[in-house]
Amino acid sequence: MRIGVLTGGGDCPGLNAALRAVVMASDARGWDVVGFADGWRGPMDADARPLGIDDVADVLDRGGTILGSSRTNPVGVDGGLERVGAGLAAHGCDALVAIGGEDTLGVANTLARTGVSVVGIPKTIDDDLGATDVTIGHSTAVGIATEAVDRVRTTAQSHLRPVVVEVMGRHAGWLALRSAIAGGAQAALIPERPFDLDEVQDRVAASLARRRAPVVVVAEGALPAGGAETVSSGETDAFGHIRLGGVGEWLAARLDERNDADVRAVVLGHVQRGGPPSAFDRELGTRLGLAAVDAVAQGSWGSMAALRGEQVELVALADAVRELKLVPAQQYDAIAPLLR
Amino acid sequence: MRIGVLTGGGDCPGLNAALRAVVMASDARGWDVVGFADGWRGPMDADARPLGIDDVADVLDRGGTILGSSRTNPVGVDGGLERVGAGLAAHGCDALVAIGGEDTLGVANTLARTGVSVVGIPKTIDDDLGATDVTIGHSTAVGIATEAVDRVRTTAQSHLRPVVVEVMGRHAGWLALRSAIAGGAQAALIPERPFDLDEVQDRVAASLARRRAPVVVVAEGALPAGGAETVSSGETDAFGHIRLGGVGEWLAARLDERNDADVRAVVLGHVQRGGPPSAFDRELGTRLGLAAVDAVAQGSWGSMAALRGEQVELVALADAVRELKLVPAQQYDAIAPLLR
Amino acid sequence: MRIGVLTGGGDCPGLNAALRAVVMASDARGWDVVGFADGWRGPMDADARPLGIDDVADVLDRGGTILGSSRTNPVGVDGGLERVGAGLAAHGCDALVAIGGEDTLGVANTLARTGVSVVGIPKTIDDDLGATDVTIGHSTAVGIATEAVDRVRTTAQSHLRPVVVEVMGRHAGWLALRSAIAGGAQAALIPERPFDLDEVQDRVAASLARRRAPVVVVAEGALPAGGAETVSSGETDAFGHIRLGGVGEWLAARLDERNDADVRAVVLGHVQRGGPPSAFDRELGTRLGLAAVDAVAQGSWGSMAALRGEQVELVALADAVRELKLVPAQQYDAIAPLLR
Amino acid sequence: MRIGVLTGGGDCPGLNAALRAVVMASDARGWDVVGFADGWRGPMDADARPLGIDDVADVLDRGGTILGSSRTNPVGVDGGLERVGAGLAAHGCDALVAIGGEDTLGVANTLARTGVSVVGIPKTIDDDLGATDVTIGHSTAVGIATEAVDRVRTTAQSHLRPVVVEVMGRHAGWLALRSAIAGGAQAALIPERPFDLDEVQDRVAASLARRRAPVVVVAEGALPAGGAETVSSGETDAFGHIRLGGVGEWLAARLDERNDADVRAVVLGHVQRGGPPSAFDRELGTRLGLAAVDAVAQGSWGSMAALRGEQVELVALADAVRELKLVPAQQYDAIAPLLR
Repeated sequence: MRIGVLTGGGDCPGLNAALRAVVMASDARGWDVVGFADGWRGPMDADARPLGIDDVADVLDRGGTILGSSRTNPVGVDGGLERVGAGLAAHGCDALVAIGGEDTLGVANTLARTGVSVVGIPKTIDDDLGATDVTIGHSTAVGIATEAVDRVRTTAQSHLRPVVVEVMGRHAGWLALRSAIAGGAQAALIPERPFDLDEVQDRVAASLARRRAPVVVVAEGALPAGGAETVSSGETDAFGHIRLGGVGEWLAARLDERNDADVRAVVLGHVQRGGPPSAFDRELGTRLGLAAVDAVAQGSWGSMAALRGEQVELVALADAVRELKLVPAQQYDAIAPLLR
Repeated sequence: MRIGVLTGGGDCPGLNAALRAVVMASDARGWDVVGFADGWRGPMDADARPLGIDDVADVLDRGGTILGSSRTNPVGVDGGLERVGAGLAAHGCDALVAIGGEDTLGVANTLARTGVSVVGIPKTIDDDLGATDVTIGHSTAVGIATEAVDRVRTTAQSHLRPVVVEVMGRHAGWLALRSAIAGGAQAALIPERPFDLDEVQDRVAASLARRRAPVVVVAEGALPAGGAETVSSGETDAFGHIRLGGVGEWLAARLDERNDADVRAVVLGHVQRGGPPSAFDRELGTRLGLAAVDAVAQGSWGSMAALRGEQVELVALADAVRELKLVPAQQYDAIAPLLR
Repeated sequence: MRIGVLTGGGDCPGLNAALRAVVMASDARGWDVVGFADGWRGPMDADARPLGIDDVADVLDRGGTILGSSRTNPVGVDGGLERVGAGLAAHGCDALVAIGGEDTLGVANTLARTGVSVVGIPKTIDDDLGATDVTIGHSTAVGIATEAVDRVRTTAQSHLRPVVVEVMGRHAGWLALRSAIAGGAQAALIPERPFDLDEVQDRVAASLARRRAPVVVVAEGALPAGGAETVSSGETDAFGHIRLGGVGEWLAARLDERNDADVRAVVLGHVQRGGPPSAFDRELGTRLGLAAVDAVAQGSWGSMAALRGEQVELVALADAVRELKLVPAQQYDAIAPLLR
Repeated sequence: MRIGVLTGGGDCPGLNAALRAVVMASDARGWDVVGFADGWRGPMDADARPLGIDDVADVLDRGGTILGSSRTNPVGVDGGLERVGAGLAAHGCDALVAIGGEDTLGVANTLARTGVSVVGIPKTIDDDLGATDVTIGHSTAVGIATEAVDRVRTTAQSHLRPVVVEVMGRHAGWLALRSAIAGGAQAALIPERPFDLDEVQDRVAASLARRRAPVVVVAEGALPAGGAETVSSGETDAFGHIRLGGVGEWLAARLDERNDADVRAVVLGHVQRGGPPSAFDRELGTRLGLAAVDAVAQGSWGSMAALRGEQVELVALADAVRELKLVPAQQYDAIAPLLR
């Protein structure tokens, strides 16, 4: 048996833990593994190399992915899926383990429906995939964002100055919600819930009145009630593109106008998805990698290894990618008592 | 409404997050909170003080418990439970939130059965309570132990010298298992599974043969097949007590005899339960604290806030303390391919 | 004897360590300490409170300053220096310990020349004060910036994508230089040395040719040869101000145009000056605080506690603020072999 | 030109940074580098391999040493120094860069006096070498020990229980002194100053009286006034050797007898010398590595790269190894006001 493996989409901490587990579990069964380069580009170009246990001996605590990644999507390319099949065949792969988020696993699901022997492993720092309690990378990102909230809080407090921290999350607010809870923020603004600027300002003012510097955590995809046009500045950015996002800076500017205090914005950006994985992401990546090899052994094509409660189980890829997992209104509303 | 709250048993990171949530959620409902000192000693001695939101404003990222803790158990004291009831009454408490592990929650369960209005929140770095996926403090401890494994690995590798790392866990091996997985150890020895010294040595030798320094993670409660008498040295320790434990040093000595390399032992000890809580433990403590106040509002006496999958639910205290949650054999055996 | 103490300018990690040492050393001598609020605003408004050893018992590992800080400068205010003197007198202060950077210590120096009994302690994350090897806060900031470089490197490498990291440093490049060295960056751009865009691009291209994702560390005050007008976009930012800086985004845009790879910019911002101080900053703050109290005891007015080699010595405030300490050309050129 | 390089003695974080700098600076000059394995064993056995810039591309943030290390000392071996010379010749080395502590650099000094072209780089977590302000590895170790003090403090405080933390340092107390200062310990016991048990107990009791849990930091080489026989228990340890050390456990036992509180001991052990180097150690290792190659270029045989204030300078190896750098009495006494 020879297994192909790839990592697709944005990289994140914990991918290497999953790769390592796939390789070690395969090796223990006497199977070979080949690693495809750069997500779906690898099989499309038949670009792969053998992966043995020595190749993964030192990667457990390394962020990113030793295979490389890309956002190449064979579905949008003429003959793309056929090229994937040909690439797998060229390397003699009997099965493929695809590690990725919505896009990568969506392709895997499509392939599975056409008869390709594929299983999936879920990763995304946004934690917005269905059918699993959590995805690889999310725990580390929450830790990084929480540390940032901790850091800005001490300086905010010293100057009694509100700070807006913009974290990742275009569609789902899990990262913003969790880092706001763990960091003790005074507001948590998420894409699922258009925010009311006056309400945010009320929280900020109430916090300042207690002589506590408020920290506002905002997901990059959060919008004020009224919509995107409010946030878009119309200016072009340094790249010559219309500036559509920038909700963090926009919000800081609005709060700056409304308060007798300098308001600062911090945009965390790519630091959120790099660096050593948390112990949780290493364990999760490892368990999911082991389970994916079990799935291959069982011929559970079209399945995805998922964490459900304390157990790792196999679920249908189709269930994972059907719709984004968003923050439920009730869970969001429950933290209201903390936001002060 | 006035709620009493206490933290009992060994302290751990995340307790203050739970206390803070209990206070803030109560305050939002217009309720008062009093904090009892030092676990069950507090109500037994009617030793408590009011807790307002300013008291918990800066504790989210602080390890330990601002209330203090102790192992005082009213069940073993003549008239102990009555004194608890009197202490609650003396401070006008309508309900009690008890935060603790097996012992503390066992007392809470006993009190609930006698009609006291009590709800529980689970904590223990060992994660050995039933009815919840995980307990407060475990995530942080796994992170600390994993970091230690990372650290000893680099020095072990530089000298090609095996290292034994002893972590906490008298009865349950979760902490050892998880830090071994996350740290990439070559052996993980847990209380649930008597270990075979020859098998451990085989792993060590195989690792050295690959010129990889093996790291052996051992729970303090792990024992070689053959039992406790093997490990007990018979000597008295510096405190004049018979040395019963010390499996880490014992194992290092045995491996030292069997290998042409100096073997070192590291006993992590109390660093595993202190310091800033992980983002996960802060969120978990917060969510469980919020849920405990909901439970009080609902009059769900005898219940415990628990994490089940992605949800926080109320479970019966009796279910949480009925028996220790141990590592299942299947889950332990599943990591065999990684141990090299 | 009663000592006043204040912290001025931008806050940074380690200030509380210095405050604690001032308080504990004073207490050991039987002296009182009062803490003025918000830098020079405190004495100007006679706003102070007593500081005892219990007030500083838990602050050693806390970022920021428990006294608050501000950029209020009495020199620019009519009668400002007199108000400072009156504020000191109002609280019965026999001496003042001023903790701050160039501005704060400049005021202290001016006061000393007019006969006020003042000594200084240097802090600034930029490390650009003279007469001391290093200032409080710099070590922690270098650690944070280096961690960010580490983090973006793993994601950059996974996508083979250059990343520009903008760190603080308007006039001096110490933070950029050190985090670039410690993070293994491919370019380090500092205010002291106008950079040649073509040369930066050559480094980026050479790195990509080796299939290594380049990381470019740039100080916020660095400028391309040709000057500020090159970087200024002319656009107004979200605050309605002309965007003068933004060298990080500007540079990323230029590199994006020149390479067949998406280039990303990360602007670290205020996370660089908050959070728990490094062990070094705690020790440094403590040693400087102890020395400042010694200086008071000796009546060494107009002096500043400074680290010189392994020793803490008293230097003249005038020497510390005479000119900014910049990166010498030779030290900058010496790292050329590393930049690839 | 071909340079040999080796790392000797106990490993520590930052060695790889120095190796990387030696390789990159040599490469920039067009020189070759060969790395000898396992300290002086490498040249004695002519065991070496070429080191190019790709070999050191990913090691900057890695603890330990990619070359391996050992305590092999050619001076004590018949014909040892001749074998070193022959090993260097066998690999065509024109010069040798030796990275190590007292023993390794002592050998280097001996070789230099016999005409071998050798320069040194100082490392030791103990920071007890002369002629340099600090050595590679010390900063990281201080950080780790300080974090441990932070961690045990929160748990100590929660149970109002004294904790003794034993850190490394057989002859010099720098690590104990600095982690005690940075961690806010109530006592710092170092080898240079025999401690008075009654005085330690007084500090412990005073701290408990303030309801502050005392943390006592003790270097492994610290001894009570009266000497080693007091500490030695006479028992044999698990390895069958007489237990000579164990001052941490011994002290905890003595304090346990004297206080109405359970006293705990934590022995940090080998975690202190592993794991990722601090930013400071990475920069220091890099600067010293660059300077060592400069020394080779200048033919400054018998010299050592050293940090002196803000400058890296060349000093005589003989000066570095003449005597251990110990904590001066004055510097130790200065922290007395903090110890409560």
